[in-house]
Amino acid sequence: MKIVDAQVVVTSPGRNFVTLRITTDEGLTGLGDATLNGRELAVSSYLVDHVVPLLIGRDPHRIEDTWQYLYRGAYWRRGPVTMAAIAAVDVALWDIKAKAAGLPLYQLLGGASRDRVRAYGHASGRDIPELFDSIRARQAEGYQAIRVQTGVPGLTNVYGVRHGAAPAEGADRHPRPVVEDWDTAAYLRHIPGVLEAVRNEFGPELPLLHDAHHRLTPIQAARLGAALEPYDLFWLEDCTPAENQEGLRLVRQHTRTPLAIGEVFNTVFDYQTLVNEQLIDYVRSAVTHFGGVTPLRKLFDYAAQYQIRSAVHGPEDISPVGMAAAIHLDLAIHNFGIQEYSGHTAATDEVFRHAYTFTDGHLHPGEEPGIGVELDDALAAAHPYEAAYLPVNRLADGTVHDW
Amino acid sequence: MKIVDAQVVVTSPGRNFVTLRITTDEGLTGLGDATLNGRELAVSSYLVDHVVPLLIGRDPHRIEDTWQYLYRGAYWRRGPVTMAAIAAVDVALWDIKAKAAGLPLYQLLGGASRDRVRAYGHASGRDIPELFDSIRARQAEGYQAIRVQTGVPGLTNVYGVRHGAAPAEGADRHPRPVVEDWDTAAYLRHIPGVLEAVRNEFGPELPLLHDAHHRLTPIQAARLGAALEPYDLFWLEDCTPAENQEGLRLVRQHTRTPLAIGEVFNTVFDYQTLVNEQLIDYVRSAVTHFGGVTPLRKLFDYAAQYQIRSAVHGPEDISPVGMAAAIHLDLAIHNFGIQEYSGHTAATDEVFRHAYTFTDGHLHPGEEPGIGVELDDALAAAHPYEAAYLPVNRLADGTVHDW
Amino acid sequence: MKIVDAQVVVTSPGRNFVTLRITTDEGLTGLGDATLNGRELAVSSYLVDHVVPLLIGRDPHRIEDTWQYLYRGAYWRRGPVTMAAIAAVDVALWDIKAKAAGLPLYQLLGGASRDRVRAYGHASGRDIPELFDSIRARQAEGYQAIRVQTGVPGLTNVYGVRHGAAPAEGADRHPRPVVEDWDTAAYLRHIPGVLEAVRNEFGPELPLLHDAHHRLTPIQAARLGAALEPYDLFWLEDCTPAENQEGLRLVRQHTRTPLAIGEVFNTVFDYQTLVNEQLIDYVRSAVTHFGGVTPLRKLFDYAAQYQIRSAVHGPEDISPVGMAAAIHLDLAIHNFGIQEYSGHTAATDEVFRHAYTFTDGHLHPGEEPGIGVELDDALAAAHPYEAAYLPVNRLADGTVHDW
Amino acid sequence: MKIVDAQVVVTSPGRNFVTLRITTDEGLTGLGDATLNGRELAVSSYLVDHVVPLLIGRDPHRIEDTWQYLYRGAYWRRGPVTMAAIAAVDVALWDIKAKAAGLPLYQLLGGASRDRVRAYGHASGRDIPELFDSIRARQAEGYQAIRVQTGVPGLTNVYGVRHGAAPAEGADRHPRPVVEDWDTAAYLRHIPGVLEAVRNEFGPELPLLHDAHHRLTPIQAARLGAALEPYDLFWLEDCTPAENQEGLRLVRQHTRTPLAIGEVFNTVFDYQTLVNEQLIDYVRSAVTHFGGVTPLRKLFDYAAQYQIRSAVHGPEDISPVGMAAAIHLDLAIHNFGIQEYSGHTAATDEVFRHAYTFTDGHLHPGEEPGIGVELDDALAAAHPYEAAYLPVNRLADGTVHDW
Repeated sequence: MKIVDAQVVVTSPGRNFVTLRITTDEGLTGLGDATLNGRELAVSSYLVDHVVPLLIGRDPHRIEDTWQYLYRGAYWRRGPVTMAAIAAVDVALWDIKAKAAGLPLYQLLGGASRDRVRAYGHASGRDIPELFDSIRARQAEGYQAIRVQTGVPGLTNVYGVRHGAAPAEGADRHPRPVVEDWDTAAYLRHIPGVLEAVRNEFGPELPLLHDAHHRLTPIQAARLGAALEPYDLFWLEDCTPAENQEGLRLVRQHTRTPLAIGEVFNTVFDYQTLVNEQLIDYVRSAVTHFGGVTPLRKLFDYAAQYQIRSAVHGPEDISPVGMAAAIHLDLAIHNFGIQEYSGHTAATDEVFRHAYTFTDGHLHPGEEPGIGVELDDALAAAHPYEAAYLPVNRLADGTVHDW
Repeated sequence: MKIVDAQVVVTSPGRNFVTLRITTDEGLTGLGDATLNGRELAVSSYLVDHVVPLLIGRDPHRIEDTWQYLYRGAYWRRGPVTMAAIAAVDVALWDIKAKAAGLPLYQLLGGASRDRVRAYGHASGRDIPELFDSIRARQAEGYQAIRVQTGVPGLTNVYGVRHGAAPAEGADRHPRPVVEDWDTAAYLRHIPGVLEAVRNEFGPELPLLHDAHHRLTPIQAARLGAALEPYDLFWLEDCTPAENQEGLRLVRQHTRTPLAIGEVFNTVFDYQTLVNEQLIDYVRSAVTHFGGVTPLRKLFDYAAQYQIRSAVHGPEDISPVGMAAAIHLDLAIHNFGIQEYSGHTAATDEVFRHAYTFTDGHLHPGEEPGIGVELDDALAAAHPYEAAYLPVNRLADGTVHDW
Repeated sequence: MKIVDAQVVVTSPGRNFVTLRITTDEGLTGLGDATLNGRELAVSSYLVDHVVPLLIGRDPHRIEDTWQYLYRGAYWRRGPVTMAAIAAVDVALWDIKAKAAGLPLYQLLGGASRDRVRAYGHASGRDIPELFDSIRARQAEGYQAIRVQTGVPGLTNVYGVRHGAAPAEGADRHPRPVVEDWDTAAYLRHIPGVLEAVRNEFGPELPLLHDAHHRLTPIQAARLGAALEPYDLFWLEDCTPAENQEGLRLVRQHTRTPLAIGEVFNTVFDYQTLVNEQLIDYVRSAVTHFGGVTPLRKLFDYAAQYQIRSAVHGPEDISPVGMAAAIHLDLAIHNFGIQEYSGHTAATDEVFRHAYTFTDGHLHPGEEPGIGVELDDALAAAHPYEAAYLPVNRLADGTVHDW
Repeated sequence: MKIVDAQVVVTSPGRNFVTLRITTDEGLTGLGDATLNGRELAVSSYLVDHVVPLLIGRDPHRIEDTWQYLYRGAYWRRGPVTMAAIAAVDVALWDIKAKAAGLPLYQLLGGASRDRVRAYGHASGRDIPELFDSIRARQAEGYQAIRVQTGVPGLTNVYGVRHGAAPAEGADRHPRPVVEDWDTAAYLRHIPGVLEAVRNEFGPELPLLHDAHHRLTPIQAARLGAALEPYDLFWLEDCTPAENQEGLRLVRQHTRTPLAIGEVFNTVFDYQTLVNEQLIDYVRSAVTHFGGVTPLRKLFDYAAQYQIRSAVHGPEDISPVGMAAAIHLDLAIHNFGIQEYSGHTAATDEVFRHAYTFTDGHLHPGEEPGIGVELDDALAAAHPYEAAYLPVNRLADGTVHDW
């Protein structure tokens, strides 16, 4: 079997998605998600200008070899653009291989280790009443685990907090980066009371997650983790920027609140200290940003040695292609933890018809051969790319802060 | 698909082999090697009496789940008997899955990362002339990498040294354990000269390996490694018993001779310090003794982070079923190092017809769906089990020493 | 003196037991327990097919040499099947040696370091009232230290919890593995309240133990240990799977609750980090699964360096032979901690007549030469082997979990 | 002052270069190099599609703020594409700021710490005579420090070795990736003799460098470092892939040969273990790939704590813009080590007119305000982009190897 064509489709049914489609001489096609929110066209160029010419004529079955060829052969390795591009190739090839085998992808990854995959949803509110409403809305949708984010008194815009009628998807999508504001001290004073209120209202059983979104120093994160222990978080996410992995030692020394990190990581080397020293409990990379199924499975297997579990990053900017790949992997690995999932707009689901389903708060990849996603080119073309950025964060004095 | 039958076949075409055959309701069959040299029937009992009843009715596609079910569900985990039994199930299920996919197993493991797999052969002689003859014989057979072992003056029997007309297979097979003798000081005085002679005779390019077979203390191993540096070994194998992994720190501190360890290991936990601290260069577990393809692939992926490569254990007591599984894995993983291979007797190759080939010193798994081995029951039945043991080692004063 | 016979007796007076009997030319006999719950016949085969032939003709006095011969000479070392088989040989030889000396075994191990051996018993209930009743029943039997386990709301079956009229022995014995369910979050929410209630009801002096049975990750174990500190546990047992010993660092960093680990361990190498870094307070291996009295005594002596004490594993599936060996060892070593003890059914005590006694919550090995246990072959034969398994654990989504 | 325009110019006067030009409302312009060899257009897209829109209207004086805005504000951080794009902005802003000050850039970086900057050149030959000729040619050009690379017997193409009349620039430039071959064992056997010959021929005083180009494992690198000690290398470069920084511990333990690493690194986090544990002697990142002058200066200051010196990566694919920025930095920092420099083709020097000079083996940035480079748009346009790739490496069995 040979690859005879590879195309990149950029479509924007509510938000931008970059999709690679690889076609073989036997007529099999595979899809891979290459979406990098706010930097989409750079990945598209990486693929179209530099990778696609290398794919033509290759044997699509040689996934590991192709992965190494693109990772090592580029000489310049790692980073979000590179690894998103490689991920798209990797997932498209797994899609093809599974179709060639006539099996859903999860079967090639070792078969189902569970019946279905628990997802967590996002609830938020500018204040506690709005947050309660939002939690109830998620519960009504079936979610059995919920991430809670709220506004902070004195701050205008806070990550993860929807504003009134803002659509679920596209809320972080702006033609220029919106500047949000941030005050760590205000946040640290406010958030424990929010979690206490939620725990009191919704009882001891509901799994609650919270995302600090890289905004704390390690000692601040340590303090927050300790303050939240009475409210029994499922996890505290991205409590501090983690390029310097050793920073987590300080956090871990001071709190037993479970920790999840990794959505901005791209290779296993970003995790070695975190995993070898068991500084975190969940590895949160996306298939799309970590170079595909091939390296992410290796990461999960490595994490399993240390009883660390998976929690694949899954916001709306992971396309249905990337989401499908994640769900297949979730179902197959033993050390699955939880899957982030917010669904997509109806328009997105029309462009990307997918076999995976969300029922009673759980996902299942379906039984179609491959990853089970088809891209409708005509519909995709009806939603042309629109430049959009994530927000940025500044402190009151104007200093750039991690968003 | 459901498992409807599972049988264990013990056959002895020159030496004993234990093979599990799993059959599905769709008529697919899979084979797994459960041979544990000298303890064969214990593994057979583990399978027949305790595991086979659990397999009937299971979905053969759920390999990861079945592996975890047998590993965690037994409560008593690890160890050679347990892990050889689980390995047989794992490989048989991968054989079935690959047949169900209509693909050779290596395609399900990510496809070929290379064209073929380099093997090393065994040369030995009671003295240097015999050793030279043996090396030349291996070269004539095509081997391009050779393990060299010799007698030691004053010792009657030494591991790995063939005696005159002794058959290639079965030399270590005795109705009662043969007692060999050992003298570490004599060995340490003798072996550097042997390697020097071989290097001088066969030139600088021939990859040479040597196996110390667990007989040295760490400081003795350190001394040997340093003494052998001028002769450019491909590796020094099992230089010290490694249950206490920290012992390798001492070896590693004193020599740059590459080190290979692992044929008696059964789980990744036997390797963590060795790998995390990069104390070795090759991980040498067999598919058969490490619980199968599923955990061994995880080990290799983990080792790859540290530039440690594979070197699957492959003496004659790994059956063609275990050898085939190894070759598929070797072809697929990126960090392949080398494969041990000695071939089997003609009788063994008749009982186990296999698609894998050995040409020009390299192995290839072939392109048959599954692992590509079929077991001929009638022929197997013609070679009934015969009790046999590996030798044991004693020092001159009678003390038991690692063999 | 020579060994002239060795036989394996499998009997099932309520549950399966595997017993090795070694006979010498002087007519002395020794018994060793080789029971591995749910994998009994594999150990029996290991002994009958591979070890017994090596025993005939050996000098039974050479216990250390025989131990090394079986451990090192098998080449494939460690693991539950191997070490249970070696344990049976080791204990049978100690039994013979002590009979030859005309002394109870503990005298050969250095004599009594104490007058009697404190045991702890098991109390459990599906809810707190049932648990209170169970604790009172144990107190009525004389126990002065009690392990408490309870049901968890929402879970059907939980390890260690007897159901109504279930017999004390055999509750975990099933012709196929029963699937129990597990929810760590529910357990963590529930169990501190249980311990609080027990402590309030039974006062501050009663030693209370609790077994988490390998079901928590290290950070969950850390959290539980901290939560239980107010209730002054004697120990928290098996708080996390411990193949990766470094995981206990995290637990130890966050709690001062004493920790006990080791019932699934087989060699001292499973303990090195735990002991060297003083990560635990009690080593809990059984004579039966750790290779016998010889290596277990070495483990206790090693642990003594770090003020770590013994706590030999002693549920009903340790036969009276294994229990007797443990009690002799307990009486002799200096760093004795406590002995697990639940007694056996009357049928078991008839098959295995034993000199050891349980009085006022304490055990004594008795003064008969040897270990003081005799096996009644005729009665044993009246209770033939019945296949039985321990339960397995699955989470709500179907994932296999440590039982 | 405001940025009013930013343009990306891709030109190929012998090889591809990507240059960002920022223009202010005061008519000042600044240039930044964004060339990522073989992935040029992805960086161009990153700039044009995602970064340039953010620059318009910004105050060009706020370099630190803009750097943080682009690094943290993108959310997806690190990696070669991202950091090359940010580097181009950073250098262009420093160019503008220095022009605004009417000073050469080095003056703003603290002024000259030395009079001129020693450079090393590249010599190579397929065999030793060719290599000697090449070294003499470099000496004739003025170089007083020379990197030596040679062919390896049995290998067709080896990194860094020019073939006869091949032009100095563009040798690694191919419309599709050329597949080179590699054999570590052959290299390790061959290269010490080459260095010995060079040292004997050219005497003890000539600084000699050698680049292993990421092709060795840590223990192989350790061995090579030790083997080369008699020949007194200035450094051994990129002796092993260094994503896993801990691998250098092993190398460092076994050799005192100075080590240089870093040309594929993009942030300080890639260096922390290497620097904190003093595992290397020279940090070798390029201004262009490390995010610009701003972060590279911080890296050098950090390295100075440990007496580690600079050695900015400077092959032909660093454009004269990137080279000029490097030379300014080299002149200003205290812990300058050496600068890699090969010059460019005449065509390149026409497109990029630069103030920096190379005399007597030393570079000087010149005294023009800014970085001292002007881009001739008309000439640039005459050399349109041509797709080109670096080579890739495969072993004899077809395995992808680091190039």
